[in-house]
Amino acid sequence: MTGTSLDGIDVVIAEFSIDGTGHHNFKMIKHHSEDYPEVLNKIGSSIISLKSNIRDIAKFHHFLPYFYDKAIRQACNEAGIQTNTLDLVGSHGQTAWHAPDPELIDGFNIASTMQLGSPSVLAKLLGVPVVGDFRSGDIALNGQGAPLIPILDFEFFTSENESRILLNIGGIANITYLPMACQIDKVKAFDTGPGNALIDAAAKNYFDQNYDDDGKLARQGKVNNELFEILKNSGYIFNKPPKSTGKEFFNFQFISDNVRKINSSEPTYFDILATLTNFTAWSIAENIRLFADPKAKIIVSGGGIYNSFLMDCLRKELPLTKVDIIDNYGVSSKAKEALGFAYLAYRTFAGMHGNIPSATGADRETILGVIALP
Amino acid sequence: MTGTSLDGIDVVIAEFSIDGTGHHNFKMIKHHSEDYPEVLNKIGSSIISLKSNIRDIAKFHHFLPYFYDKAIRQACNEAGIQTNTLDLVGSHGQTAWHAPDPELIDGFNIASTMQLGSPSVLAKLLGVPVVGDFRSGDIALNGQGAPLIPILDFEFFTSENESRILLNIGGIANITYLPMACQIDKVKAFDTGPGNALIDAAAKNYFDQNYDDDGKLARQGKVNNELFEILKNSGYIFNKPPKSTGKEFFNFQFISDNVRKINSSEPTYFDILATLTNFTAWSIAENIRLFADPKAKIIVSGGGIYNSFLMDCLRKELPLTKVDIIDNYGVSSKAKEALGFAYLAYRTFAGMHGNIPSATGADRETILGVIALP
Repeated sequence: MTGTSLDGIDVVIAEFSIDGTGHHNFKMIKHHSEDYPEVLNKIGSSIISLKSNIRDIAKFHHFLPYFYDKAIRQACNEAGIQTNTLDLVGSHGQTAWHAPDPELIDGFNIASTMQLGSPSVLAKLLGVPVVGDFRSGDIALNGQGAPLIPILDFEFFTSENESRILLNIGGIANITYLPMACQIDKVKAFDTGPGNALIDAAAKNYFDQNYDDDGKLARQGKVNNELFEILKNSGYIFNKPPKSTGKEFFNFQFISDNVRKINSSEPTYFDILATLTNFTAWSIAENIRLFADPKAKIIVSGGGIYNSFLMDCLRKELPLTKVDIIDNYGVSSKAKEALGFAYLAYRTFAGMHGNIPSATGADRETILGVIALP
Repeated sequence: MTGTSLDGIDVVIAEFSIDGTGHHNFKMIKHHSEDYPEVLNKIGSSIISLKSNIRDIAKFHHFLPYFYDKAIRQACNEAGIQTNTLDLVGSHGQTAWHAPDPELIDGFNIASTMQLGSPSVLAKLLGVPVVGDFRSGDIALNGQGAPLIPILDFEFFTSENESRILLNIGGIANITYLPMACQIDKVKAFDTGPGNALIDAAAKNYFDQNYDDDGKLARQGKVNNELFEILKNSGYIFNKPPKSTGKEFFNFQFISDNVRKINSSEPTYFDILATLTNFTAWSIAENIRLFADPKAKIIVSGGGIYNSFLMDCLRKELPLTKVDIIDNYGVSSKAKEALGFAYLAYRTFAGMHGNIPSATGADRETILGVIALP
């Protein structure tokens, strides 16, 4: 897995199986992370910021698999596994473009997405079948091509005894809501709003720090009630799912635009950070109250779990709710997304659909991705 | 099949089978051609000429399959076949970039190629499995990713009774040499030099015509011997195979540069065209004499067969050789390449290699392409 932030490659080695009752099981064997090489970050950033043409895009598409190959071999090495004993690799690729909302071109409504890092090249280098290009097929069926992790949540975290919400706090926060003993068509999954995006942007711009380490900065401030009310009504949060958002909306511009609207008070930077953190927790909780179940157990993953102040705010917002972290369920928080695409590859190879239409909005369930043979 | 000239979409419906002796058979059911839509030509040309970024490239990648889908449905309709009875579609895609010679990037030798027109999207639209991206895997194994048609030539045109040469005269001319009853490692395939490229360029620049219709212009001229000798020694023709060339070398610049070297005589435009046509025929024949077998039967395909003067010149150059056209072997000349990629898809789905290492230069035989399921 390589995320849109172009910062690293995550490799998960896992085993999947289906038992006699049709229940899917996973076993985490290894999680390995590597920094994204400087040269790739440079070329990739240029592509994403629309500055590159087909020459650089094609080169990146062929170049990136050499690093995937290297990272996978390193993970195998650490786990004491021969690469040629791997059954299959799932490779998400580097998202270089994602525009799921259709645009009219010559009478056709065309949405588009593009993940770079050729599955064909990786399969030949590694000598193992590779599944890649997971998002195009769902988009072709009028889905958003995202979120795709809900199938992992549904198969492995649905409980017979309790309703659960899988909450991932990355830059943006998203949830998968799994009613107790639910069928797949009852799964809901959507972005709730900001995750770390606003907190990180404020830490960067007000304190020159990449993030608010464990919420220490925010803890020094007080919630500014006027700003809090402004933020609550700034849009998105009350929209009905399915819905998705991104850093093109929840960014520093969003913060400064809203801070400018304050009339009666003058918050400090600490106060603003405290307010943003509370707002982030509230926006997650409010979506759960409106569109899921505030009494469901919440299982949290993503970088947000390392901000104890944000987690405290979240617990305060949902006093009836047990908040747990995914690390207690056999997956480290940082490995979850990579595990998800390993599992999606497994499903594709086995001829099972990977998308959940109630989450992506696609017309139907479909087998995701392309298969490249070694 | 869509070629690099962005001028049309060729659809072939065919049946393939393997008989009890392991012999592969094909049956042509339908050939259907469509002009490339204006809007695609415009976006595609911009991409190929390095003027587009990832946004337009991703859109084209998702947009093009809608036209493939339409063309395939039209072909099925004409043949009285339901699309959902198709087993499989092979889709070459639009070549937007092809640079098989490696370039050093950060310590890695990286060659690259990119065919646009998402197999995932086409599979979902059509409801049929699609094989695409045929060239990347061969390139990852240090091959040229081309030529890929030789496997079709080998399986269907190898004879127990005679040596054969499959000659395709497109813009560039290429041959597949099949010694009598040969094994696959004895197949040779390479570009011989110009096909119609020089003739077309001269017709365009000297006579404002897109091509020399049936060689009528060239027939009005006389061969200029000095120019003929200059052309013979202008490079490429005597290079040893495997080798490939393109219109970046054999173009109008090549013509005018060589015409400028003439000292003693002043050829008319008709004379230049006559000389270029003779040179084209000679370059094909000389490659056959040097690197194949001048007594092998030649089976010709491609636009060149419609220039009877070029064909006459070729027969004069190879007086001992029987020159036939592929239309006499169950494939129309215009359908051959599309048939080739249908067959390559069949091979991929059946787990059979598609490349011939002695033709592409790849390290080994490999299953080409990616498979997208509906």
